[in-house]
Amino acid sequence: MDLITVADVEAAAERIVDTAVRTPLLPCDWADPDRPLWNKPESLQPIGAFKVRGAANAIARIPEAERARGVVAYSSGNHAQAVAYVAKRFAIPAVIVVPENAPAVKVEATRAHGAEVVLVPINDREVVAERLVAERGATLIPPFDHPDVIAGQGTIGLEIAADLPDVELVLVPVSGGGLASGVATAIKARCPAARVIGVEPELAGDAAASLAAGRLVRWPAGDRERTSADGLRAQPSELTFAHLQKLLDGIVTVSEDEIREAVALLAHRAHLVAEPSGAVTTAAYLHRAADLPRGRTVAVVSGGNVDPADLAGMLAV
Amino acid sequence: MDLITVADVEAAAERIVDTAVRTPLLPCDWADPDRPLWNKPESLQPIGAFKVRGAANAIARIPEAERARGVVAYSSGNHAQAVAYVAKRFAIPAVIVVPENAPAVKVEATRAHGAEVVLVPINDREVVAERLVAERGATLIPPFDHPDVIAGQGTIGLEIAADLPDVELVLVPVSGGGLASGVATAIKARCPAARVIGVEPELAGDAAASLAAGRLVRWPAGDRERTSADGLRAQPSELTFAHLQKLLDGIVTVSEDEIREAVALLAHRAHLVAEPSGAVTTAAYLHRAADLPRGRTVAVVSGGNVDPADLAGMLAV
Repeated sequence: MDLITVADVEAAAERIVDTAVRTPLLPCDWADPDRPLWNKPESLQPIGAFKVRGAANAIARIPEAERARGVVAYSSGNHAQAVAYVAKRFAIPAVIVVPENAPAVKVEATRAHGAEVVLVPINDREVVAERLVAERGATLIPPFDHPDVIAGQGTIGLEIAADLPDVELVLVPVSGGGLASGVATAIKARCPAARVIGVEPELAGDAAASLAAGRLVRWPAGDRERTSADGLRAQPSELTFAHLQKLLDGIVTVSEDEIREAVALLAHRAHLVAEPSGAVTTAAYLHRAADLPRGRTVAVVSGGNVDPADLAGMLAV
Repeated sequence: MDLITVADVEAAAERIVDTAVRTPLLPCDWADPDRPLWNKPESLQPIGAFKVRGAANAIARIPEAERARGVVAYSSGNHAQAVAYVAKRFAIPAVIVVPENAPAVKVEATRAHGAEVVLVPINDREVVAERLVAERGATLIPPFDHPDVIAGQGTIGLEIAADLPDVELVLVPVSGGGLASGVATAIKARCPAARVIGVEPELAGDAAASLAAGRLVRWPAGDRERTSADGLRAQPSELTFAHLQKLLDGIVTVSEDEIREAVALLAHRAHLVAEPSGAVTTAAYLHRAADLPRGRTVAVVSGGNVDPADLAGMLAV
């Protein structure tokens, strides 16, 4: 299987420069001095998550005549909002296929970016999206299983390497694996001595199980949905798993309590609102020190879209 | 009275490059399209506030032999932590004179940066600080009434001008006036068409009263202490007031309810934890539109050091 290269990521960086924010590395003055820590706050992207990078690269790559016919995505989460946001920037139509049971607030957020929302029974999402693609001549933008999406997410790794060339460890959340695949591609090319370690919730630890088994191990969706980290309930594709197998130096899992504690710590000490999915790397830094190499560490804080009531609950003291 | 110049700010930018974070401008996708809004999140600086910029410039400017004898500051807030943090980076001693009634958590945070903390009755702070300076040959770093401190804070303005050269309005909190003086110096030099408007809490609106009167109007400390924006309870000095008179295009005040609402909005929509003092510019954007020019707007979010229980209270839904 063909993996993406750092050249793909470099090309993506040029394409997304006007759409995604160039996020800084934020030094954490409360970190263990033996393991200095920087946060990479992707929660500060326009739609509150790194997904805008992959969507921007994938949409920029569509030939112009085709692009005018619009894009389609199926998702109820950050990817939907990212595709809607980027489509608005390109002034092209976007249709987002959303399961009927998605929270009203997420549907509203997607509509607020000017996208058309099609509500369907959850099992019909893929079929309806494909029908829309066929009917309209639009292009499907998948959430992670596509080289252009992976390359877009990888721009995070290029920025880390530019800002902290002697980084020793990068912690990155793993769900569908697009983010981890892209970041690891860039880091391994630019900082070959650095380790890249994935982080998953224990309750959605299918990628950890897959890497241990040396092949894709599937967990039932009902199992993966137990985690509060709703951005980490997907599972790798053949394409992303091939990247993870080749590029990751390991993967650790964290508990729900550790994730909640990390959300609170990021708010109080780093002044960042992270969603549970975005806080897993901080949880790993705090609670998996024995399993991690020491040295200069970057934690990718992948997103900040947490329900206000849930956030207030996690910050209650 | 000699005001600082943009050349002073440019020199400061070179001095602080390794100490302060180069914060990005964050586009707000929920803003009024007629008044596109970007946040300048100084809450993401190492000690959680812009104060690290002024402290870094002032300490870098001390001749090396003197600097080795250390620095002194009197403050219980962000300035104390900024001086402690920068002194640690320079490997020099720092003594912070703190009122006995300061919250234990702030005293602890200052000690955590390696500073010596001297607790004194609140009215003795200045006298004790001056005695320490005399005894130790250390240098006093004032919170705002000093050209080097003002020039350091002004680096925020240079960054805004570099990232958004066609900015039309900059909103900046006003307390002692060091931040507003520095930012306005840089913006007026680089973007002469842009307006710079200060924001104060109604309950500590002494600078607004002073600008209206054309002279420094003093409010009793007991009055200024009514606002929850504990970073905005100081009042301008002759030096900062001279800058504000010459450079500000206006000043608006916001209510306590508007500040609380802005803290919640910044958390939920911008994924930033702001302290009340840092949220006043967002409050002004939301509630003083009639008093503000339209067009591309930057809100300086000056800090994020809010008590965890207070934050949870403001985010409760």
